[in-house]
Amino acid sequence: MQGLKENKNFCIIMAGGIGSRFWPMSRTRRPKQFLDVLGTGETLLQSTFERAKMICPIENIYVVTSKLYGELVEHDLPECRKENILCEPVRRNTAPCIAYAMAKIEKRCEDALVLVMPSDHLIVDKENFVNRIFQGFRLAQREQVLICLGIKAAYPNTGYGYIQYNMDVCSQDDCGIKKVKLFTEKPAYEMACSFVESGDFLWNAGIFIWSLQAIKAAFAKFLPEITEVILKGRDLLDTDQEEAFVEDAYSICPSISIDYGIMEKADNVYVIPSDFGWSDIGTWGALYNVMNKDENGNSVVGKNVMLYDCTNCLINVPKDRLLVAQGLDDYIIVESEGVVMMCKKGEEQRIKQFTTDVEIEKGNEYI
Amino acid sequence: MQGLKENKNFCIIMAGGIGSRFWPMSRTRRPKQFLDVLGTGETLLQSTFERAKMICPIENIYVVTSKLYGELVEHDLPECRKENILCEPVRRNTAPCIAYAMAKIEKRCEDALVLVMPSDHLIVDKENFVNRIFQGFRLAQREQVLICLGIKAAYPNTGYGYIQYNMDVCSQDDCGIKKVKLFTEKPAYEMACSFVESGDFLWNAGIFIWSLQAIKAAFAKFLPEITEVILKGRDLLDTDQEEAFVEDAYSICPSISIDYGIMEKADNVYVIPSDFGWSDIGTWGALYNVMNKDENGNSVVGKNVMLYDCTNCLINVPKDRLLVAQGLDDYIIVESEGVVMMCKKGEEQRIKQFTTDVEIEKGNEYI
Repeated sequence: MQGLKENKNFCIIMAGGIGSRFWPMSRTRRPKQFLDVLGTGETLLQSTFERAKMICPIENIYVVTSKLYGELVEHDLPECRKENILCEPVRRNTAPCIAYAMAKIEKRCEDALVLVMPSDHLIVDKENFVNRIFQGFRLAQREQVLICLGIKAAYPNTGYGYIQYNMDVCSQDDCGIKKVKLFTEKPAYEMACSFVESGDFLWNAGIFIWSLQAIKAAFAKFLPEITEVILKGRDLLDTDQEEAFVEDAYSICPSISIDYGIMEKADNVYVIPSDFGWSDIGTWGALYNVMNKDENGNSVVGKNVMLYDCTNCLINVPKDRLLVAQGLDDYIIVESEGVVMMCKKGEEQRIKQFTTDVEIEKGNEYI
Repeated sequence: MQGLKENKNFCIIMAGGIGSRFWPMSRTRRPKQFLDVLGTGETLLQSTFERAKMICPIENIYVVTSKLYGELVEHDLPECRKENILCEPVRRNTAPCIAYAMAKIEKRCEDALVLVMPSDHLIVDKENFVNRIFQGFRLAQREQVLICLGIKAAYPNTGYGYIQYNMDVCSQDDCGIKKVKLFTEKPAYEMACSFVESGDFLWNAGIFIWSLQAIKAAFAKFLPEITEVILKGRDLLDTDQEEAFVEDAYSICPSISIDYGIMEKADNVYVIPSDFGWSDIGTWGALYNVMNKDENGNSVVGKNVMLYDCTNCLINVPKDRLLVAQGLDDYIIVESEGVVMMCKKGEEQRIKQFTTDVEIEKGNEYI
């Protein structure tokens, strides 16, 4: 891997999500990425930043977040340069977020190689992850391509994007990298089933690798309305007028994902099938699937939890809370900041309803 | 009822229990009687004191408690005379407790009529209760008898005492009062079933009525070892040596219940069958039985509780706690001072095991 952790390697960490499905732990004022949901002692953002440090110098790591969360990012990442924390005035999905960060990076390094990743995913095997990223960087340096990371589709999750691939890229170093045939966002259940059965579909992990020039060209081609807006303010970036410019730019930028805006349309998209142990930890159930479990299938975060006749439960309570539970099977039990939630694991899609009801009945204190 | 709320009517409220089956709400440092377990805004002790005020003047109400709880009693009952709060140095069951309070009362009124009642029971129909007590006082004034209140045995509870009665007392005013044939403490299940079936058994509510002279004679006959100990210190009561005397007296007093020590042995015992709506609220399940329930059979204490698909649950959480629960049937869910406990209602006898385990693993902080 010599020469790979070079100064033209950059990372963009996307940390603007609101993680509503992780209620009550995830709150509007402190979403999932700022929480230690795995009980490791690190927030998900901190773990992500540590991974980024294996890819590039600290000064090349950018974090894009909502201006609501700027202070939370600073708090979680004291090592991160303050000028690398980019605050979005409003949520506009991933394409504007990436365009903004790319414009910042371009002013520092026109031939940058960039890794884009969400701040709230779990990566189990970090070495494997780093190897995949560097493999992607090598291809991105050589050719004007857009690369995403794909995870073998294990079950028909209808909340994910699916990537169908076809032929291998031929060079030896690129061994395993596939040309993408089709991107499909959130398929219907029957379609998701057929994807999983067919075997040549991967989940889109939302992790991207490209050269600055490649993504710039793609934006110009597929999202010129965003390119124009951001381009106009190029000279204002890194000045005291940046904030006002970004405020204006975001007010007129369309809200669109990078997947829908570019990846689904471009014909130079590649995927690296990956097996480093991944989860988007998108729901409590997804978290349960990746957590360690005791002999009864219970996954527990909390120092004082005593279970009797409990099986297959996910429990997450504060350190100082004594929880004694008896006779529960397949429940999610979470306590966080004034709220206790108990819900059958199979019913967790109703958490959205709970939060809506809570907001109506109790106001936004608990949301 | 003219002339009944006279100065020779006295009440003794027994408030020394530790309520271990009500964990985690009931704690060693604040047992059940000092809690608002019914969510009425009053602690059980406060409700009991209010009932006592319907029977006799405030200055004739005595509260016997552990010295650990003297301050809690003072806090809950600002109206209660401080010299009427009797603090026991150690727990010695009900007989010494009653003997001590009787000795205090005797110094004020040798022909007192006394109601003895636990501090932690529920009485639904207070007027009916008061009528029963005054009926008892009239009999106790006329004859040297020991009277207890009996509740129609509704199901074979093996934790209660049972009273078998036979003939009616004949005078018109005593209508309904029965002579007691047999006292049986905590029968085996099969025996409890036969008691309930036979129809002439009542539960012993632990509420007693007698004249001071009648109970004094009974103590002299059946518990002379307690009479002697207390009698010795008669002159020290209401002096600054009372505390030291009581300390000594309790150290040598046997630990024995009034039921076992006197009521089971005496032949002048009567019972007033009562139907004022009673529960000893001895367990969470017993509390559930007497609580109001919503249309799904859930009994809820707490301002911010939202239930989805929950049935037959007993829920008791602090006012400021938001609890969202989904898909639970027949559970007890209680939060109190750092502890959340969830337990199937049918398994609540295991709470004792939980507290033992908690004490071993976590120390007595949570007990």
